[in-house]
Amino acid sequence: MIDVAVVGAAGYVGIEAVRLVLGHPRLRLVLATSGADAGKPVAEVYPALAGATDLVFEGPSAEKIANVANVALLAVPHTAAIEFAVPLLKAGVTVIDLSADFRLADPAVYEEWYGVEHAAPELLQEAVYGLPELDRSRLSGSRLVACPGCYPTATALAAAPALEAGIATNTRVVVDAKSGVSGAGRSLAPSTHFVAANESVRAYKMGGQHRHTPEMEQTLSMAAGRAISVIFTPHLIPMTRGLLSTVYLDVPSSFTTADAVVLYRERFAGEPFVYVHDAGFTPSTAEVAGSNRAAIGVAVDQRTNILVATCAIDNLGKGAAGQAVQCLNAVLCYPETEGFERPAPIV
Amino acid sequence: MIDVAVVGAAGYVGIEAVRLVLGHPRLRLVLATSGADAGKPVAEVYPALAGATDLVFEGPSAEKIANVANVALLAVPHTAAIEFAVPLLKAGVTVIDLSADFRLADPAVYEEWYGVEHAAPELLQEAVYGLPELDRSRLSGSRLVACPGCYPTATALAAAPALEAGIATNTRVVVDAKSGVSGAGRSLAPSTHFVAANESVRAYKMGGQHRHTPEMEQTLSMAAGRAISVIFTPHLIPMTRGLLSTVYLDVPSSFTTADAVVLYRERFAGEPFVYVHDAGFTPSTAEVAGSNRAAIGVAVDQRTNILVATCAIDNLGKGAAGQAVQCLNAVLCYPETEGFERPAPIV
Amino acid sequence: MIDVAVVGAAGYVGIEAVRLVLGHPRLRLVLATSGADAGKPVAEVYPALAGATDLVFEGPSAEKIANVANVALLAVPHTAAIEFAVPLLKAGVTVIDLSADFRLADPAVYEEWYGVEHAAPELLQEAVYGLPELDRSRLSGSRLVACPGCYPTATALAAAPALEAGIATNTRVVVDAKSGVSGAGRSLAPSTHFVAANESVRAYKMGGQHRHTPEMEQTLSMAAGRAISVIFTPHLIPMTRGLLSTVYLDVPSSFTTADAVVLYRERFAGEPFVYVHDAGFTPSTAEVAGSNRAAIGVAVDQRTNILVATCAIDNLGKGAAGQAVQCLNAVLCYPETEGFERPAPIV
Amino acid sequence: MIDVAVVGAAGYVGIEAVRLVLGHPRLRLVLATSGADAGKPVAEVYPALAGATDLVFEGPSAEKIANVANVALLAVPHTAAIEFAVPLLKAGVTVIDLSADFRLADPAVYEEWYGVEHAAPELLQEAVYGLPELDRSRLSGSRLVACPGCYPTATALAAAPALEAGIATNTRVVVDAKSGVSGAGRSLAPSTHFVAANESVRAYKMGGQHRHTPEMEQTLSMAAGRAISVIFTPHLIPMTRGLLSTVYLDVPSSFTTADAVVLYRERFAGEPFVYVHDAGFTPSTAEVAGSNRAAIGVAVDQRTNILVATCAIDNLGKGAAGQAVQCLNAVLCYPETEGFERPAPIV
Repeated sequence: MIDVAVVGAAGYVGIEAVRLVLGHPRLRLVLATSGADAGKPVAEVYPALAGATDLVFEGPSAEKIANVANVALLAVPHTAAIEFAVPLLKAGVTVIDLSADFRLADPAVYEEWYGVEHAAPELLQEAVYGLPELDRSRLSGSRLVACPGCYPTATALAAAPALEAGIATNTRVVVDAKSGVSGAGRSLAPSTHFVAANESVRAYKMGGQHRHTPEMEQTLSMAAGRAISVIFTPHLIPMTRGLLSTVYLDVPSSFTTADAVVLYRERFAGEPFVYVHDAGFTPSTAEVAGSNRAAIGVAVDQRTNILVATCAIDNLGKGAAGQAVQCLNAVLCYPETEGFERPAPIV
Repeated sequence: MIDVAVVGAAGYVGIEAVRLVLGHPRLRLVLATSGADAGKPVAEVYPALAGATDLVFEGPSAEKIANVANVALLAVPHTAAIEFAVPLLKAGVTVIDLSADFRLADPAVYEEWYGVEHAAPELLQEAVYGLPELDRSRLSGSRLVACPGCYPTATALAAAPALEAGIATNTRVVVDAKSGVSGAGRSLAPSTHFVAANESVRAYKMGGQHRHTPEMEQTLSMAAGRAISVIFTPHLIPMTRGLLSTVYLDVPSSFTTADAVVLYRERFAGEPFVYVHDAGFTPSTAEVAGSNRAAIGVAVDQRTNILVATCAIDNLGKGAAGQAVQCLNAVLCYPETEGFERPAPIV
Repeated sequence: MIDVAVVGAAGYVGIEAVRLVLGHPRLRLVLATSGADAGKPVAEVYPALAGATDLVFEGPSAEKIANVANVALLAVPHTAAIEFAVPLLKAGVTVIDLSADFRLADPAVYEEWYGVEHAAPELLQEAVYGLPELDRSRLSGSRLVACPGCYPTATALAAAPALEAGIATNTRVVVDAKSGVSGAGRSLAPSTHFVAANESVRAYKMGGQHRHTPEMEQTLSMAAGRAISVIFTPHLIPMTRGLLSTVYLDVPSSFTTADAVVLYRERFAGEPFVYVHDAGFTPSTAEVAGSNRAAIGVAVDQRTNILVATCAIDNLGKGAAGQAVQCLNAVLCYPETEGFERPAPIV
Repeated sequence: MIDVAVVGAAGYVGIEAVRLVLGHPRLRLVLATSGADAGKPVAEVYPALAGATDLVFEGPSAEKIANVANVALLAVPHTAAIEFAVPLLKAGVTVIDLSADFRLADPAVYEEWYGVEHAAPELLQEAVYGLPELDRSRLSGSRLVACPGCYPTATALAAAPALEAGIATNTRVVVDAKSGVSGAGRSLAPSTHFVAANESVRAYKMGGQHRHTPEMEQTLSMAAGRAISVIFTPHLIPMTRGLLSTVYLDVPSSFTTADAVVLYRERFAGEPFVYVHDAGFTPSTAEVAGSNRAAIGVAVDQRTNILVATCAIDNLGKGAAGQAVQCLNAVLCYPETEGFERPAPIV
């Protein structure tokens, strides 16, 4: 059994990580930290876990974590993740980071988008970007994994096959995405008050303001083997979980929907968490809710020679905590599906 | 491994049963039947199960079931369940029935409420009512289990402790319940069209018309050791899963909320699926969604000497398929928690 | 034209009052006050009003109100309403209060439930309880109207006809009510965060803790002509607007659903805002959303001799701002329907 | 008073038209037809209209309409609209058509996308496209108005200013839109069952399959003065009302968000139903729900030189029935705001 600490465990991503660790046959949850809820039993804050754990949220401390855990899942904001990662790595703790702190290879890009100098740039080269379906070669045995953001995960899965294959020829990619409200976190805000978010949809951070943009550009550029710019518009959708990213890719006039289905299916052949729909079908976020799955649909508009690819994930699952546990499985050389064998609720 | 067939598997209860059987370490799903979806792969109708099963829905046939399965979970309407149960029992198949066909001990009551003569009254004595928290003594080794309805389950858990203890003294019990829309099933109907059900709440079958009424009366009367009448009003709530039953019980003036918490906690001590909240807290259906759990809250209004008890369940979980699998575990002398170890999604 | 100030105009009730005043042919909105949003244009905080008003929220001040307005609609918390009402009445401003401050005739009851001594008990006798369908005789020309709470409004309309007629014989009345989230107001709170409230239902203030209880007892007792105790359980429903109150009344064994429909229809004959459904039908909150309407359904369970009556209102409409404007119409001797002629959105 | 018939009045668009006509001071609703609900009182099918109208749905018949109405609002499917329009126009009835039958100037395009020959191509030249904010010059006195589809309305308002001004230079425009479920109509379908649509988002008719595409191309091409291709992806959102269209336009590198706000505000100066948000703000569908308003937000991503413009409308309001009444006002030389003076519910 591997002893795991979840840091920032009282947020929505953190508690999903807690849940997944509790349900994993080879992981043992030994510590759940929370600044705001320290001292409260986990099951008091989240009664859904009554009976599943007796742990009490503890105040965060790298020393405490290093004393009890082999692995730390960091579900804390950027900059805070660096502050934990540095001492934890020194103490020999494997770090699976869910923040943005180790995702961007270039510290200058980090500084540009996050408005703060990167405090541990020397770790960026070591950090492994944790999107196994794109590249799992460096995960096994890695000490530091940077799990992708929710939007970049869905966008990469939707766009990478066509870019990698050289089928998509554009240098600017439109990414129009839709996220459930849990993506905005547990902190109270006017925009996520029930009355404000319910029965409404809106774009936010419009005009390329969202910080996931450079991460998408990094991933899509790597897939394409050339520089790709992303114009990204996220939208807030009145539902709790789920994220859908719709991308628009220029393709040759001879490229058809049937070709696209074949291309995507071959690219993701054997991937246990990726499902590519038949031509004429589109994925819904409902079909991946509560799971670590990603569902993809593709269609080519032959009038405009544009491939529309859409990928549905659970923002807390494949978009965050699920992916973190999948990566941890890969780090530990377990089957990536370990702990995910049981299907999530269906309707 | 026990070979299980789910009959009526394409409905919401049926597919939840499919999911639970697929995730159960000692059960093997060998057959999923559906009249309407026969011939379609399960994962085509429910893409959430892509990768989890290659089964194709087959047309229902008792003979086919008996050929391949040790156990049949019947998620078909009343009267149809009898038609399957009779030949299946003859063929030695254990039957876990989720319909109303074997819940009522008195065939005359069945006929009164369901408007049809009971076609197999000789089985009613053998049938075991499958609410393990009230009485699990007859489940082990049973051949025929009648799983309770969703409303009766939540209502029984809310009311039984006070009735059994003789604390609740009334002979008529008001039961005011609220159910998510999945409780109305997968069949299309004007009342469950999104636009009709969204952003609205309404009572239905008001004035004691709902067929779950005699089942509640049977259960509460047994708990009380005397005849109890139930006045039951179900309401339709704009959410997919979840059911809350609020019951009103007359108690002595000396009986306090603190007493009620103690009473309920002692009654359900050791029950892995029942959680009784502290005084001052109330359960939400969200905290049990996707699980087989029941969460209870109690409060005594000392101005009127009424104990208000509320029980939240997932109508498809503890209210249907979860309970069926829990009962099957009991029948097979497995731990009742087998297959339920991993917590359901939390937010 | 009557010049109207809405005090506490940036809350959900306040802005609904603003909307109704703006749409009323004989009222002119001259002032909208808000402590938190003072200085911001109304249409910036609520873009839905862009083009409809150029007013800027102003900080609240009784003097300012008295300078410009003939009428003040008070949508502020209890105790604050008294602080405005006293000087406004002195200055000759008509006060339509939406808080609890002038609803309870007995200041001792107010103190018991609100935990604070009533600061202006001398006004209680003058204050007219503003539920026109029960008693509009004192509204015309009144200076101070106490608009009922949302729960008491729906409950009174559901219960009063049977109590007034002497048909309902019980002394304790169970009131089980369900409210949309806007009833909890615009202030941020964990329980009204989208993720917390969505896809869930729960009881709150269970065991007779809700402050609307004494108001219901006052109203129902007056209707019955004898003391009535109320055991009231409110529930939070995942929708924005709407409130449904379901009440349980003991009736003679000879009293039928058909009798109830006749009784309620006769009682509310000519009431423009009350609609009594046919036997076998139940009202939904959707059918009254955005309006000042109340829709009632009745059914008698002849097995238990209980009349179940349910009343649906919009908590912000007939449950608050709509009723305030209806009362103001009555005060001003306008038709009560003035300003409500146009139907609200239907789906 | 103008006598109006609403044809296809029991659908969601039809009943919204009924509501708007009932609330209009110079229109009188004389007939509401419905094939499926003929013989039922309007207020029985839609209890929200109890008290507002005593009309009974009548079976559709052009002769009956011509006998009683000056104006017919056609809320029937394409091809059916032609069947009504031809005899009604002959009989001198003004036709405001909400279907696709008269929107496309070229009957060959109609045939290509709708799969049926146009039965009255001689009327296409006379038909006036009813998007007053783009061109109201031909509406006054017109006999036949073709109201735009919901997606084309929002898309045109979002894209036209930049295209008309020659600022947007692309020939292919990505249109990514999101619609509430009422847009799919009142007919029951698996995709609009509450359980299927709730808590989920998905694209549909992906790859340029949606029939609104050629209409958008016609409108945007006219705005641009050159041929524009549209790649359009609609998404289904779990809410009842509301539609948001997000468009991506190539602009010169010197063009800023501030420029865009100025451009859009100048373009829509004096338009009573169009609101352009400040830079940094985005419209939500909630702020236009129940109204005939359109709210626009614009932002330029200067890294990619793309203008993102988003327009929120109510699909049943400005996207259908609201626009129809606005157009009818223009036809009748009434102020376009007639009947829309009262703000819609805000939260």
